[in-house]
Amino acid sequence: MRNTAVLLIVCPDRKGLVAAIANFLYRHNANILHADQHQDKEAGLFLMRVEWDLDGFDLGLHKFDEAFAPIAGEYQMQWRLALSSMKPRLAIFVSKHDHCLADLLYRWQSGELYCEIPLIISNHPDTRWLAEAYKLPFQHIPVSKETKAEAEAAQQALLEAHRVDFVVLARYMQVLSPAFIQRWPNRIINIHHSFLPAFHGAKPYQRAFERGVKLIGATSHYVTEVLDDGPIIEQDVTRISHRDDLEDLVQKGADLEKVVLSRAVKWHIDNRILVYGNKTVVFD
Amino acid sequence: MRNTAVLLIVCPDRKGLVAAIANFLYRHNANILHADQHQDKEAGLFLMRVEWDLDGFDLGLHKFDEAFAPIAGEYQMQWRLALSSMKPRLAIFVSKHDHCLADLLYRWQSGELYCEIPLIISNHPDTRWLAEAYKLPFQHIPVSKETKAEAEAAQQALLEAHRVDFVVLARYMQVLSPAFIQRWPNRIINIHHSFLPAFHGAKPYQRAFERGVKLIGATSHYVTEVLDDGPIIEQDVTRISHRDDLEDLVQKGADLEKVVLSRAVKWHIDNRILVYGNKTVVFD
Amino acid sequence: MRNTAVLLIVCPDRKGLVAAIANFLYRHNANILHADQHQDKEAGLFLMRVEWDLDGFDLGLHKFDEAFAPIAGEYQMQWRLALSSMKPRLAIFVSKHDHCLADLLYRWQSGELYCEIPLIISNHPDTRWLAEAYKLPFQHIPVSKETKAEAEAAQQALLEAHRVDFVVLARYMQVLSPAFIQRWPNRIINIHHSFLPAFHGAKPYQRAFERGVKLIGATSHYVTEVLDDGPIIEQDVTRISHRDDLEDLVQKGADLEKVVLSRAVKWHIDNRILVYGNKTVVFD
Amino acid sequence: MRNTAVLLIVCPDRKGLVAAIANFLYRHNANILHADQHQDKEAGLFLMRVEWDLDGFDLGLHKFDEAFAPIAGEYQMQWRLALSSMKPRLAIFVSKHDHCLADLLYRWQSGELYCEIPLIISNHPDTRWLAEAYKLPFQHIPVSKETKAEAEAAQQALLEAHRVDFVVLARYMQVLSPAFIQRWPNRIINIHHSFLPAFHGAKPYQRAFERGVKLIGATSHYVTEVLDDGPIIEQDVTRISHRDDLEDLVQKGADLEKVVLSRAVKWHIDNRILVYGNKTVVFD
Repeated sequence: MRNTAVLLIVCPDRKGLVAAIANFLYRHNANILHADQHQDKEAGLFLMRVEWDLDGFDLGLHKFDEAFAPIAGEYQMQWRLALSSMKPRLAIFVSKHDHCLADLLYRWQSGELYCEIPLIISNHPDTRWLAEAYKLPFQHIPVSKETKAEAEAAQQALLEAHRVDFVVLARYMQVLSPAFIQRWPNRIINIHHSFLPAFHGAKPYQRAFERGVKLIGATSHYVTEVLDDGPIIEQDVTRISHRDDLEDLVQKGADLEKVVLSRAVKWHIDNRILVYGNKTVVFD
Repeated sequence: MRNTAVLLIVCPDRKGLVAAIANFLYRHNANILHADQHQDKEAGLFLMRVEWDLDGFDLGLHKFDEAFAPIAGEYQMQWRLALSSMKPRLAIFVSKHDHCLADLLYRWQSGELYCEIPLIISNHPDTRWLAEAYKLPFQHIPVSKETKAEAEAAQQALLEAHRVDFVVLARYMQVLSPAFIQRWPNRIINIHHSFLPAFHGAKPYQRAFERGVKLIGATSHYVTEVLDDGPIIEQDVTRISHRDDLEDLVQKGADLEKVVLSRAVKWHIDNRILVYGNKTVVFD
Repeated sequence: MRNTAVLLIVCPDRKGLVAAIANFLYRHNANILHADQHQDKEAGLFLMRVEWDLDGFDLGLHKFDEAFAPIAGEYQMQWRLALSSMKPRLAIFVSKHDHCLADLLYRWQSGELYCEIPLIISNHPDTRWLAEAYKLPFQHIPVSKETKAEAEAAQQALLEAHRVDFVVLARYMQVLSPAFIQRWPNRIINIHHSFLPAFHGAKPYQRAFERGVKLIGATSHYVTEVLDDGPIIEQDVTRISHRDDLEDLVQKGADLEKVVLSRAVKWHIDNRILVYGNKTVVFD
Repeated sequence: MRNTAVLLIVCPDRKGLVAAIANFLYRHNANILHADQHQDKEAGLFLMRVEWDLDGFDLGLHKFDEAFAPIAGEYQMQWRLALSSMKPRLAIFVSKHDHCLADLLYRWQSGELYCEIPLIISNHPDTRWLAEAYKLPFQHIPVSKETKAEAEAAQQALLEAHRVDFVVLARYMQVLSPAFIQRWPNRIINIHHSFLPAFHGAKPYQRAFERGVKLIGATSHYVTEVLDDGPIIEQDVTRISHRDDLEDLVQKGADLEKVVLSRAVKWHIDNRILVYGNKTVVFD
């Protein structure tokens, strides 16, 4: 893994912005590896991701904030610096459907997902064997209507104890409370098994089957307080036909869910996603 | 073009059905070219499409009804016989957006769509040049809130005068009245510029853009009295990114619309579509 | 799992075929669940797959051969009867790349692949942990130029000892000898990491990268004596861009390989594939 | 259409490059609309496309060359300035298959392709009607083995007389001579009806059908002296099945060809394509 820094910026679009950033990096001898920018004309916004090699970069990272502040201030930037050497800490929430969990664990083990997984939480014990196969800690926290508040408190405590950076709902079939969600803004990724906004809410495959659609989809998104309404990170679809019954849809959909969720998780880890308004920009 | 017959059947699923149909055709020396069937287990239905060569078929088509009646009766079949030699007569309704019209006319002219086009109707004169390029009759019937009933009466009269078999709404931006639609059950094909049921109704590209979806779609369907709710014939999607503004979506979507609509029209002409409930089976 | 029988037929196309088969099944009270047929006009061939419920079928399967022989003889059928209750026995060959193996094992464990896996063979010990996670036997048989004949003899002995029905090469990086292949006609499935026939042979991702293609692909096929030339079962592609370096291609390709191989294995298990000439028909 | 300038740059990758370019543009008050860059690590190259509004840009374009020369020299840039106000002049070559021609003309007429079409050349008279429908000049230049040199001379004279900027081979079934091609480096776009490098050369659909592939493709590329080997601009594929005969492949392929060719032409017009080595970068 490279020793790189990623700077993510959102600010009002203005002349001189790119020059100011490029000069700053050049002045400190940055070897730029990737740079990507986007202008949202309607919103009048400038969004940028720039990644550079820290070898030879002559500004200590503890001084970055201070050194960059004048530029950030002048251009009213919201910005964030991320280091590729810092593995983010991921907690996975899962229920009984284990295909997304199995997929994420394999990708983690193979090095595709550059993160730590200090915690897998489930309201059922069924997926414990998977966690054990990958030698990862598994916490069974049952959830019922009555115990939900309590369960969320236990989950929250575990997330904090393990210094978790972000959460992935890998087909976790419980709806999280607004209070819980508010503590993790743009840091909970969900996979919904439909092409949102079609079939938001419960039983999307059943409803897709009944409506007679010719393609089914999956959507990964950041969780907000409105169900299935957060900023979409990735979507994909696959073709079905009248020969597919509901069970076939579920099975074909599972392959979509795995790919769509794992892309979102990878992009989040690689600091490729900028959220603005209720949308995302994913820099390739 | 071959001289073939197509038999389309829907009936309750029962043992002996296929044998009964196959024996009937064999007895009359049918050379079967394609046969496809489907069982909807949930609905307990059997659906079939069988196409055979009329060369050598020893049953006169005027006697088909009488000869097939006993089988049809025994198995409670809804059935329809279509002849590939009969070119169906298509009327196209269009407004100002002409991409679907241009596409359909080219496919008709090239022989891909085996039909007659005795009538192109528009509420605007803008596409007259296209009709003229293909030497097809064009009728300009303006529509306003006040004149809608009158306009529909004029349209209906033209459809009857030209013995039209089915209607294609090629981005015709008017909503047809229930009375009009009821006269053409499963015989009006519409193209909607979204992946239904997402973004049904007005301005789907605008809303897709605002929601931040990562794919846009198009849907062809038979028109029913509930807007954008009829049986779906075909759908497809294409990927978009944050770099695409609303105008890009409209342009990328246009390519989808053309393909998705033309497939539906072709399958309708080729008698490949069976409607049951609010779904379609499209036999390949 | 249902208790069904599948009959697969290839024969010269002739009138009366469907009637003969349908009558035979009806006579024995078969409740047909799926039937699909195809006529290859150029080759003059008829291909069929029919699946029926064995509950109520009044012909003992030990007598099927004798009872069906007159029809099979009259129409010069090549045919095969398969029972859904019989789990086929699969051996997986793998080298160091473990993504396809991990994918197949997960699908097997989840019930998607209805088979036994009595044997995983590898020329490297690296994937032993995966076999153990799923509690499956793992055999490490190193292969070098000098020991290849010997290794194949050992492999062959194991396949026989475990009464294996078919073999999947899940990124097994060795070329099997013609003698080995001839013993398993249409019973070895390989995954090749390109869109065949493009980039057959070694290093397909490298060559795709150098050629500057805009899509990469994967192909599953039955192994024949000519390298990467056997009947294609399934293919799929994914889009790449100039931003993807060789490593990205390998990673994106891995997702394709998994899906394309697992579909082929599933279809083989479900008796959906008919091979004729150097092509396959995959009945949906 | 905006009044913008596009600067395309290829040069060895070096620190300070982006700052130098950004400063230059900022000094002259450029309002940057889009900027996209790419680093090819293996080749050590930096590639950039930057587009800015000419309103407010304080450097006269006739002085651009002189003003930019010091930077271009220091960084050993190959560069090109293009103005969005200048409509490039396109000549289309076509034979009898007219689907790509019809598609391009419609897109031109609708404003999607921002170019002039001063010339349509064909070795057959069959498509004259299409040119006439769009009121465009059509030249019939028959080609035979004996008259090929002569025909190319006539074509070349016409291209020059009409000050053509680039040529599109819209299913032009003749192979151009090396001498002809050398005069139009990276300025002749061809559509090949396969997923290159598979099935390069003659009869790709026939060969795809015989090989039993499960997807067919189309490829647009710049023409070089080696047949079907030039830098690939765009590719796409569509799924086929055993039910598709050769004629179906041709028809499904035609829809691919249209889309894949028109994208390439649009990107060429919009100055989005950079060729380096035998590859392209297409900036979105």
